[in-house]
Amino acid sequence: MTGHHILTLSCPDRPGLTSAVTQRLFQHRGNVVEAQQFGDAETGRFFMRIVADFADEAAEGEFRQDFSGLAGTYDMEWSLRQADERRRVLILVSKFDHCLSDLLYRHRIGELPMDIVGIVSNHPAEGHELAGARNIPFHHFPITKDTKPQQEAQIRDVIEETGAELVVLARYMQILSDEMSAYLSGRCINIHHSFLPGFKGAKPYHQAHARGVKMIGATAHYVTADLDEGPIIVQDAEAITHADTPDDLVRKGRDIERRVLARAVRCHLEDRVLLNAQKTVVFGD
Amino acid sequence: MTGHHILTLSCPDRPGLTSAVTQRLFQHRGNVVEAQQFGDAETGRFFMRIVADFADEAAEGEFRQDFSGLAGTYDMEWSLRQADERRRVLILVSKFDHCLSDLLYRHRIGELPMDIVGIVSNHPAEGHELAGARNIPFHHFPITKDTKPQQEAQIRDVIEETGAELVVLARYMQILSDEMSAYLSGRCINIHHSFLPGFKGAKPYHQAHARGVKMIGATAHYVTADLDEGPIIVQDAEAITHADTPDDLVRKGRDIERRVLARAVRCHLEDRVLLNAQKTVVFGD
Amino acid sequence: MTGHHILTLSCPDRPGLTSAVTQRLFQHRGNVVEAQQFGDAETGRFFMRIVADFADEAAEGEFRQDFSGLAGTYDMEWSLRQADERRRVLILVSKFDHCLSDLLYRHRIGELPMDIVGIVSNHPAEGHELAGARNIPFHHFPITKDTKPQQEAQIRDVIEETGAELVVLARYMQILSDEMSAYLSGRCINIHHSFLPGFKGAKPYHQAHARGVKMIGATAHYVTADLDEGPIIVQDAEAITHADTPDDLVRKGRDIERRVLARAVRCHLEDRVLLNAQKTVVFGD
Amino acid sequence: MTGHHILTLSCPDRPGLTSAVTQRLFQHRGNVVEAQQFGDAETGRFFMRIVADFADEAAEGEFRQDFSGLAGTYDMEWSLRQADERRRVLILVSKFDHCLSDLLYRHRIGELPMDIVGIVSNHPAEGHELAGARNIPFHHFPITKDTKPQQEAQIRDVIEETGAELVVLARYMQILSDEMSAYLSGRCINIHHSFLPGFKGAKPYHQAHARGVKMIGATAHYVTADLDEGPIIVQDAEAITHADTPDDLVRKGRDIERRVLARAVRCHLEDRVLLNAQKTVVFGD
Repeated sequence: MTGHHILTLSCPDRPGLTSAVTQRLFQHRGNVVEAQQFGDAETGRFFMRIVADFADEAAEGEFRQDFSGLAGTYDMEWSLRQADERRRVLILVSKFDHCLSDLLYRHRIGELPMDIVGIVSNHPAEGHELAGARNIPFHHFPITKDTKPQQEAQIRDVIEETGAELVVLARYMQILSDEMSAYLSGRCINIHHSFLPGFKGAKPYHQAHARGVKMIGATAHYVTADLDEGPIIVQDAEAITHADTPDDLVRKGRDIERRVLARAVRCHLEDRVLLNAQKTVVFGD
Repeated sequence: MTGHHILTLSCPDRPGLTSAVTQRLFQHRGNVVEAQQFGDAETGRFFMRIVADFADEAAEGEFRQDFSGLAGTYDMEWSLRQADERRRVLILVSKFDHCLSDLLYRHRIGELPMDIVGIVSNHPAEGHELAGARNIPFHHFPITKDTKPQQEAQIRDVIEETGAELVVLARYMQILSDEMSAYLSGRCINIHHSFLPGFKGAKPYHQAHARGVKMIGATAHYVTADLDEGPIIVQDAEAITHADTPDDLVRKGRDIERRVLARAVRCHLEDRVLLNAQKTVVFGD
Repeated sequence: MTGHHILTLSCPDRPGLTSAVTQRLFQHRGNVVEAQQFGDAETGRFFMRIVADFADEAAEGEFRQDFSGLAGTYDMEWSLRQADERRRVLILVSKFDHCLSDLLYRHRIGELPMDIVGIVSNHPAEGHELAGARNIPFHHFPITKDTKPQQEAQIRDVIEETGAELVVLARYMQILSDEMSAYLSGRCINIHHSFLPGFKGAKPYHQAHARGVKMIGATAHYVTADLDEGPIIVQDAEAITHADTPDDLVRKGRDIERRVLARAVRCHLEDRVLLNAQKTVVFGD
Repeated sequence: MTGHHILTLSCPDRPGLTSAVTQRLFQHRGNVVEAQQFGDAETGRFFMRIVADFADEAAEGEFRQDFSGLAGTYDMEWSLRQADERRRVLILVSKFDHCLSDLLYRHRIGELPMDIVGIVSNHPAEGHELAGARNIPFHHFPITKDTKPQQEAQIRDVIEETGAELVVLARYMQILSDEMSAYLSGRCINIHHSFLPGFKGAKPYHQAHARGVKMIGATAHYVTADLDEGPIIVQDAEAITHADTPDDLVRKGRDIERRVLARAVRCHLEDRVLLNAQKTVVFGD
């Protein structure tokens, strides 16, 4: 018996999809361990995630071969991976490293199935606590208005060289160029603070304090050209009071940000997030 | 095209189940709108809930016929119902009627797909606000230690006469006899307050206050002979402080109780809850 | 001993305020049962809420007399009321009456210390469940674009005649004129749905669904000319998923809206909310 | 002007307390920045926390001198400390170091006003990630049934030598002897997982899973002889589903535990927690 495999797919909805997919698995000695599906009534699109074991490697190979034909017929986007395959992840950070620190911790105890192939910061290594990041290459790529294209090229080089499959903006405070955003589309997760109502622009916690909101939150989303507007993966919020200073909001925000980002990264690494135009389907988080 | 139907099933897990079920649906011109499944690795039991449309009534009839055979082969417990079929519900209440009041409200605006076939109280009608319950028969069945068997017989009579499919203990403060609990097993939902840590016995909010807990909660569960220990359907909790008096806890508890009970009732009415020995599987709540 | 009295005050901050106030209470045989204060470091404004008992009515009268002088010296806005004095409240509603229904319920069981002096709707009585509102005058004031000034005049008449001290917009879907907003300033609470990020305009739940947010919420605030932007009193939010339809969001939103509005109304009735320019101080909710 | 000072006190309740305390502050040129009080109607005990600035050090000295007399008269337990004075903290840990790791992180970024004077583990240093703990003495004190008295004596020695004012059991899995618990009473915080309903004994997450609860939580409390029953400081909980395996519960539990413990430690360090017999008063968390 092979270990768990994760099959994800999305395609135009039509009758018989679940049957066609699960029957094919059964024929090739694949056993469904877990399955979730969702049909978006508005867009007419169908989404599915299956965790399956195969009798042996040959069975998996045959299934992959056969399924590839089916996928063509049904116009599917699909992926089949071993569940314990660790993805290569590059983390970008700026001055505040609470999210970096949290990801390093979760990585160390094996909570997140990933290999961190590098850390890029626009601040020098001395500004970060990297003791938990031994053996992880650290890249200091400073940036100014004038050197942005070159700095982004440096990041792209690291991505290409390391084969990074996911880029995590762990409070990376530089706005990516449209080209960079397009380049990273669908494989880059950002975290930003958000509120009820939302605040844009600089110093959002100070804005929230000035507005007197009673709740603060954070949003993890995929990067698109429009920085804070990509498909949302995870959100969370908690109550605050009039007695909370802007500093208190920053402190509470740090905690929300790190848990929201960690959850989004975990969902992505476990193939739980499927893109649905400007939205996401998040299975079984 | 028929309206939505809900198929639920549970059986010993084995390869090919999802395939067998969905294929059968496809053959009989049933279209899967929504599907969820869960395999309990510990008990080896498989659970599934499918929302499906059929091409026409004949198709549904054929499927039902055919599926019945399959269910025998796989040793399934199963049910197939029209999603908009309203279940007959009997509500039992004692002195405090916040849960009754909330269920009546949700019933009135059509949030809960049920017909309320009666309200039973061990207190007289004058003690309740029944203005929102016009046309719903009200039964005052007083109870004393000595008359418990007779009173429970009265309730059973109402259940039999009305064909009630679900009994909701909406803060019904009488402990059911073992016979009554067994009679209602799997079709009776109770709400009780619970805490971290839990408190048993009388005046739980006062106990919680005396203990100085910082959180109170409520649990909705199916009734078994052991009153507060049946399979749990829904739980929720919220923060309290040292400044909350026992009265404050009672007030906050009322709100938690009514939303937890309403959610549990809705899940049951939508066939989202499947029994898994002493536990439940709750799909897509 | 008199029953509880609630003293609230706000004034420019300066040393000795707490001492001056509590000393004055002590001198007039007032006993502090509960006290909260807050100094806003940014605006330099001081806020206080004290629950106190007096030895007898004479003591209370003397204190009030004496305190009035102190308040002049310190430039205080202040109020002293009996805690069990019930405020007169007028409720405005449109088509959806889940908030009205909830307030009526809480009023009936004595959870909210208020007398409801009337219900105003721009829809006829038949559209509402008013069985729980016996003895409460119902006013049907229809409104069109052309009759808005007259309709608002009708509402003002009811407010004047009943001496309503608080107006609750319980999902009243008409935008108040600037004059009406100014007239109601500081004594009118509105509830509106809000999200992370916030959505303005029509059909907010549909907007939220289209955006794919993972959390919805609601805000209760005082009315100002800018309808959704008045000082915030209470906010709450909860998680949703991709599987929630716009109808599900509306259903979940109803629950959040009614509990957020009820909490805001209770805080107001218990003198827990003090205005701090465009923000609020909410004590000990 | 001196920096912030924190005055906490508790005593039998009687009229004039707030007045007496704040007047004394005013007389000695102390300015109240923040004040909270609570009178426990059941036990007749009064609790107060004041943040105050003094005009200069002399003023603070005079106040302390004068207040000491008042405290005698009113039978007060009290404390007056500089708010930015860092307390000496000793952390005890066993195999799982998620709470230790989190506390080290918060310490590093200055979120918690403490000096960590040592880490004690019954497991060797190699088992922990101590890179973030440079300059913090690590003590490996193994323990067996037979050596418990000696091991506890070693811990006491470290406490005495370092002058540790607070001991944090950051998932220290050894049950303290009654003597040790008594020795640490009121100055030792423990974290334990708790549920609705609560589970005692070994493998609580597995118990919770077996019971099918829909919510897990954690409790931070002061240590008493009865390990899990000391005065509760902070609790939190979150929803789980049937699909969560025991491993998922452990993972989710880690996150709840670290944030609950961090919050309790911060509250303690900021003098927000006052003991009220078997309960706590937690001000303005």
